Amino acid sequence: MHLSELQNSMRHLYMERDRERGRDATFRWFTEEVGELAKAMRTGDRANLQHEFGDVLAWLASLANLEGIDLEAAAARYAGTCPRCDQAPCGCPFP
Amino acid sequence: MHLSELQNSMRHLYMERDRERGRDATFRWFTEEVGELAKAMRTGDRANLQHEFGDVLAWLASLANLEGIDLEAAAARYAGTCPRCDQAPCGCPFP
Repeated sequence: MHLSELQNSMRHLYMERDRERGRDATFRWFTEEVGELAKAMRTGDRANLQHEFGDVLAWLASLANLEGIDLEAAAARYAGTCPRCDQAPCGCPFP
Repeated sequence: MHLSELQNSMRHLYMERDRERGRDATFRWFTEEVGELAKAMRTGDRANLQHEFGDVLAWLASLANLEGIDLEAAAARYAGTCPRCDQAPCGCPFP
């Protein structure tokens, strides 16, 4: 799935609701899912972990739709070399 | 960019460093980027906002790599109808 396909799908499914809820409440929902991801990392349930990664992605796409940000453009910096040191693999000082 | 391409790129660029840092520190970095996203939403700098969405995506992909989670599989639930109410657009009770 292209990032744009995910973003378009989320736009079709949820944009009207996201607009009604607003950017701040949508951000709050997004962070709620980040918390659920943390919990899934702790419990070790693999199916639930995949589920929560999906939810975080979905809510990030909803937020990007509300903010008018293109996730393809956003991710492009990471398509080749490290955007900081311009090497692949990254050669930045650790960590 | 496919989600899998982003995840593969992040694997090539950062997997060794991510492994050395470990899942918990990588989660901490991820949440640091979520905070920077919140700040970018507040300041209104569009270029910075796109930058931070990219960083959140990147660190989520790093985390998925460490956890052995396929982001394509994770996002698939949102490819068609709402995974909760099975409608498109979503017809779930608000919010």
